[in-house]
Amino acid sequence: MKRYEQLAADIAEGIRSGVLRPGDRLPSVRQASTSRGVSPTTVFEAYYLLEARGAIEARPRSGYYVRAPAAGGPAEPATSSPPEASTTVEISELVFEVLGAIRERDVVPLGSAFPSPALFPLDKLALHLSKAMRHLDPWQTVEDLTPGSESLRRLLALRYVVEGTAADPAEIVVTNGAMEALNLCLQAVTKPGDVVAVESPTFYASLQALERLNLKAVEVATHPRTGVDLASLAAVLERHPVKACWFMPNFQNPLGCLMPDENKRALVELLARHGVPLIEDDVYGELHFGPRRPPPAKAFDRAGLVMHCSSFSKCLAPGYRVGWVAAGRFAERIARLKLMTTLSAPVPSQQALVSYLQQGGYDRHLRRLRETLSSRQAIALRLIAKHFPKGTRTTRPDGGYFLWVELPAGVDALKLHRLALSQRISIAPGHLFSADRRFASCVRLNIGHPDDPRFERAMKTLGQLAGSLVPA
Amino acid sequence: MKRYEQLAADIAEGIRSGVLRPGDRLPSVRQASTSRGVSPTTVFEAYYLLEARGAIEARPRSGYYVRAPAAGGPAEPATSSPPEASTTVEISELVFEVLGAIRERDVVPLGSAFPSPALFPLDKLALHLSKAMRHLDPWQTVEDLTPGSESLRRLLALRYVVEGTAADPAEIVVTNGAMEALNLCLQAVTKPGDVVAVESPTFYASLQALERLNLKAVEVATHPRTGVDLASLAAVLERHPVKACWFMPNFQNPLGCLMPDENKRALVELLARHGVPLIEDDVYGELHFGPRRPPPAKAFDRAGLVMHCSSFSKCLAPGYRVGWVAAGRFAERIARLKLMTTLSAPVPSQQALVSYLQQGGYDRHLRRLRETLSSRQAIALRLIAKHFPKGTRTTRPDGGYFLWVELPAGVDALKLHRLALSQRISIAPGHLFSADRRFASCVRLNIGHPDDPRFERAMKTLGQLAGSLVPA
Repeated sequence: MKRYEQLAADIAEGIRSGVLRPGDRLPSVRQASTSRGVSPTTVFEAYYLLEARGAIEARPRSGYYVRAPAAGGPAEPATSSPPEASTTVEISELVFEVLGAIRERDVVPLGSAFPSPALFPLDKLALHLSKAMRHLDPWQTVEDLTPGSESLRRLLALRYVVEGTAADPAEIVVTNGAMEALNLCLQAVTKPGDVVAVESPTFYASLQALERLNLKAVEVATHPRTGVDLASLAAVLERHPVKACWFMPNFQNPLGCLMPDENKRALVELLARHGVPLIEDDVYGELHFGPRRPPPAKAFDRAGLVMHCSSFSKCLAPGYRVGWVAAGRFAERIARLKLMTTLSAPVPSQQALVSYLQQGGYDRHLRRLRETLSSRQAIALRLIAKHFPKGTRTTRPDGGYFLWVELPAGVDALKLHRLALSQRISIAPGHLFSADRRFASCVRLNIGHPDDPRFERAMKTLGQLAGSLVPA
Repeated sequence: MKRYEQLAADIAEGIRSGVLRPGDRLPSVRQASTSRGVSPTTVFEAYYLLEARGAIEARPRSGYYVRAPAAGGPAEPATSSPPEASTTVEISELVFEVLGAIRERDVVPLGSAFPSPALFPLDKLALHLSKAMRHLDPWQTVEDLTPGSESLRRLLALRYVVEGTAADPAEIVVTNGAMEALNLCLQAVTKPGDVVAVESPTFYASLQALERLNLKAVEVATHPRTGVDLASLAAVLERHPVKACWFMPNFQNPLGCLMPDENKRALVELLARHGVPLIEDDVYGELHFGPRRPPPAKAFDRAGLVMHCSSFSKCLAPGYRVGWVAAGRFAERIARLKLMTTLSAPVPSQQALVSYLQQGGYDRHLRRLRETLSSRQAIALRLIAKHFPKGTRTTRPDGGYFLWVELPAGVDALKLHRLALSQRISIAPGHLFSADRRFASCVRLNIGHPDDPRFERAMKTLGQLAGSLVPA
């Protein structure tokens, strides 16, 4: 981590812990430079970064101040309060109807699940792909079959260990993206009719997976900043024969919430007491704005009950279709399911990643990517404050590239979706994120398209359209 | 097709149609050269090819003769007679137990499902991969998502059309190999508890798919040369509420049988009358030894009920994980299932195949591959005749790389498997190829490893081991 990042991280931690409060004045650049023993440029860069992230604000001729969340932008949504009953899921038709039409290039992709492909080092990856495949031992095409390339699994295990999570190459199964990993996990631990706990709101793909496998969903109250509410989860576990949880402790889709480490530990312990496996979707974990990669829940797992799923699709190599699961005690079952359904992950993609991870500069790329997304979020928050109707609330996650925007009561996000699409702007209406189509006034916005010159105008248009839907 | 191939094809057709009979003497090289207006070399090459394929034999100082199948090698197995009842499937444990241990390089892979990776133009593919990915438009990573690269789907549709099968790019879904295509098809048209008809014996992966999805199997009598017995199928359709058939009309695994065109037509019409979808597994169709690619059943489909699945894994690009299904009326349902489970086929692999199919010399490669496999089959048949116990029967397919060997009654193929494995030879015991572990005296042998110097010795060892298991 660079010096200015360290300084910014320390200040952010101060704000988080309450040592610095909204309205507090930060030390002047000169003071900070002297007391930290760094150059004034470093301090400027740190302050600039924090400003871009919306944590502090410059007041002309006065200096930098810790920003008051309420005053500095839209308020945050409240913790969700899902129904107590479990429910069958019928959401797929709606998901395909809404998201099917929005892959055209002339649509501003605020509803997309993917960040801009221009954010990724695709040319560099192509070089590693060429190098790795040019003199491939033909037998590698057999040996890279499921559970996957041994070199890749070793490199993945190494990253876990470096980040403080115990993981063994032998428990890792390479998959066709995280989507396959998550689906295989779900299949490995459930049978039709079983109940699975999900967050509220939750990623629509988890609902689609439940629907496909004839599983029932029970939703758990989720805080927009700290994620799954553990007391609610404990109650759910008492009331329902839950066979698995599918959660995203890091930068959840759509809320962007990040479970504090202690909550993750408590979550894992609670589930272990009930013998319930955790399917952990961690595809955004690398996209943290803070100084350190938040650990996965898997870091606290002692019982082998956590299946940690991730991929390179959102942070490095879209389209390569390489994901994985570190599956603990379920590894063999999952490998077998994969052999029966898709046999293996693609060898060229696996080999390219092995080469890139060894020599490509992954961490450098990630640092740049995080900075980009963090500053794009700040811009998006400002645009919402400026253009969206009064009473709009929004999350301000510490990572990822989604904002969850709660529009004033009475605004129908599906109507907004249709209006926006007629202006060639896509959004993901809140209806997609629960089994019973709650969150009807919410939308998920993708802010991860910095190369799209239409973004600002689209946000303005969207705000105006939303305003036109506010009941008089 | 080259001249000698055309000549060989004409002679083979003469044998097939009965114009030439076992024991008939072929024209001398000089005669044939004059009457066909080709060089003596061309005639020699044609005769050599037919000899390699076991269709004719040279008799010293006499000339070439049409070979008598009975005299020229082991007899053929009989048509199967499966039980009438449908049955739940529990085969996966056994499949993994038997096949799990045989991926080591020091095991002679007679039990493998894959031909030798050395048979494929992997270096050339790597060049096309590099070229295609070097200046990839980043948005291609989005546009190649399911249903898959439009260029690739167009090229595939073109191949269908050239071969005389109507297919539309819009009905093609690119998948992670044929295995995924087949599984998605099955999911698209069944629900747990449904009955699915399969051949007898059938590829174990179809049984595993049925088991995984809680489907019941009903097996249909299958002729070792002409495939599914249509009268038996008609009876099965009367007796059982069959929701789908999973068949391999071209070079079935494990029998290698090839349904005559007229049978395919009748099959498609029979199923259309019953409204039953056909899941057609055609991964070996390109590996024909005869002059023309046998059409798929899909060529006769008017109702959109045939889902034609294939891939490049067995004929061009192992490990690339690119397969597809031309799914008729089920295309959208299958695309949605894929979006929900693995999202997309790998972009690098798709792009490499687009480039290779346009300029790589696919048909030239296929011709060489077919010749290789055809002559390897002839060698294997001779080794079986020489080393295997008296009473052994075997198929002699017109394509693919499997032989189905029926050992004398009383020989237990699972015992043989264990004995062989202790000698570092793998086989696929017949037990894997039915829901109720019939075919206990049969084995499937893979003859597609011409680069393996251990092949001849392994066949001899295997024959001796089989001999040691024949009851006194």
